Order: sequence, then structure tokens, then C-alpha cells
Amino acid sequence: MADSSKAFDLVFEGEATAVGKMRNDIKVRWGSDEFDLATDEGGFHGGDGTAPPPLALFTAALAGCIMTQIRAFGKRLKVQVDGLDVATRLHWKGTPTTAGPYESEPVGFNLDITLDSPAGIDEQVALIRAATKGCFIEQSLSDKFPVTHRLKTTDGWIDV
Amino acid sequence: MADSSKAFDLVFEGEATAVGKMRNDIKVRWGSDEFDLATDEGGFHGGDGTAPPPLALFTAALAGCIMTQIRAFGKRLKVQVDGLDVATRLHWKGTPTTAGPYESEPVGFNLDITLDSPAGIDEQVALIRAATKGCFIEQSLSDKFPVTHRLKTTDGWIDV
Repeated sequence: MADSSKAFDLVFEGEATAVGKMRNDIKVRWGSDEFDLATDEGGFHGGDGTAPPPLALFTAALAGCIMTQIRAFGKRLKVQVDGLDVATRLHWKGTPTTAGPYESEPVGFNLDITLDSPAGIDEQVALIRAATKGCFIEQSLSDKFPVTHRLKTTDGWIDV
Repeated sequence: MADSSKAFDLVFEGEATAVGKMRNDIKVRWGSDEFDLATDEGGFHGGDGTAPPPLALFTAALAGCIMTQIRAFGKRLKVQVDGLDVATRLHWKGTPTTAGPYESEPVGFNLDITLDSPAGIDEQVALIRAATKGCFIEQSLSDKFPVTHRLKTTDGWIDV
């Protein structure tokens, strides 16, 4: 059950400037914290390769978000997490159009999670589900394409 | 009109490992390119502050994605872009629950775009709309919360 009287807001703000051929310098603020980030494209895409492309940051953000919540929520839910690895595969499609160069759409995002934990599989699954619901990025994604999560067990991968 | 016979796939893969208190080391691969990224949390959230938090990377990724497409599509659509700034505000809410610590949800994402361009406002608006449709991250977001875009004009901000 949700307790909306204790809801909290989270606001991230960015100030971004296009520089160079395809590089973007992006200052991100969260409260009093400030982070200097950048994106670029490789030479094939007209950039100088001075920073990762936006989708590389996105891939890291999604993996990092769910992993952070698995560890943070593990403490709160008393599910011990001694180690954690996540393999991520993000698949998009681009389709050329007569109006613009192309339109893009997500095909599917898959996260394969390996937990080192003495907890039972049911507890590990419950932790991953809670972390998914608490992951700000996952909850911002469309439900029109699959975001799948699998957990590694001694009997192989299971869907979460 | 979409030409599905010329559709192309885009796949980003990540291999992430939890290290330190809350840090995640994330190797991202795109074709033969490889990027070493990381996330962490500040001391207040139990981390060591060795890298930006996941949502800072997400903010930069979203801003960088739309900016990259505005410049790339500008060339293709013959809309000259001499300068480009984007101010981003991403707002989420967390609501405590009895089951997990809390559940999260997006409230609204706002992008304020300043283009330095000799093109007319109609052309600038058309470019931004095309870039939005071509932005892999924006197209992955849920339509259940507003993602707004405004363009700066000499008469003030207009909705795109």
C-alpha cells in the first residue's frame, strides 16, 4: 500500500550546450550537487569521439539505476547482497521516413541479473521486483515494449 | 511515410559490476566501440561520490540524444544550426509503500531549446519535432507523463 502523505520529489536539472562537431557539454544539478558530463559521436557519425554517445550514457544509467536500488532496497528489505552483476541489452529500431531522416522506436530492453546472496530465490525475486518499482528510470519507460528481467540461479535463468 | 524495407537496428550492450559501497562499473559496447562508465551515490545516500548518480547520466543522455538529433537532422533537413542550448528539468516522485521502501514514478520532463539559426520558426519547430521522433531515448519513454518541448523565440517561449 502506498503512503502518499510521505511522498517525496526528485528533480534533476541539466544545462547543455552544443560544442565541437557533435559534442554536447552537459552540467547536471541535483540539489547542491553538480556533475559535468558530455556526449559525442564517433567519426563515422560526424563527431570527434571525445565522449560516449548518449545511448551509452543511457545504458549505464539504466543498469546503474536498477543496481543501486537492488543494493539500497536489499538493506531495507533485509536481503543480503554480497555481489551483483547485470548484463544489459538495449535494442532499438530506426525506420527511414519521407518527412524526417528516420523515426526511432525501442524493440526491447533485457536485463540479466546475477546476485551473490545467501537469500532464497523467492526473496531475491521479491527484491528485484521491488527495485524495479523503485527504479526511477524503469518507471519512466513505455510499457509498449518489453523490459525483461532474468535472475541467474543454479538451475539456469528464470524470468522475474 | 515510413519505409520499413530500410529499417536498421541499434543495439547497445552493458556489462555492469557492483563495486565499493554503491558504485557500479559499467562497460558499454556498441558495435566495435567500447565505453567505460560508472555510477555512484554521494555520502548521504551511502556511496562514495566517485561517479555521478544514475539519474545524472540519464539527464545527460536525454539532453544529448535530442541535441545530437537536432544537429544531425538539421543537416539532412537543410535547417542550419549555428548554436544549440537545452535546459532540461526531470521531475520524479517517490511514494513509500508497505511492501518495498518506495515506488517511483515520473511527474514530467521539460526541455527548453534555444536554437541559433537563420531558419524561420516554422522550420525550427519542424526540425525539433523530427529530432524528437528520431530520438531513441524519447521514443522509449512512457506517454503517461508529459515530455514537453519549448523553443525560444524573440517573442518568448513557444510550445513545440
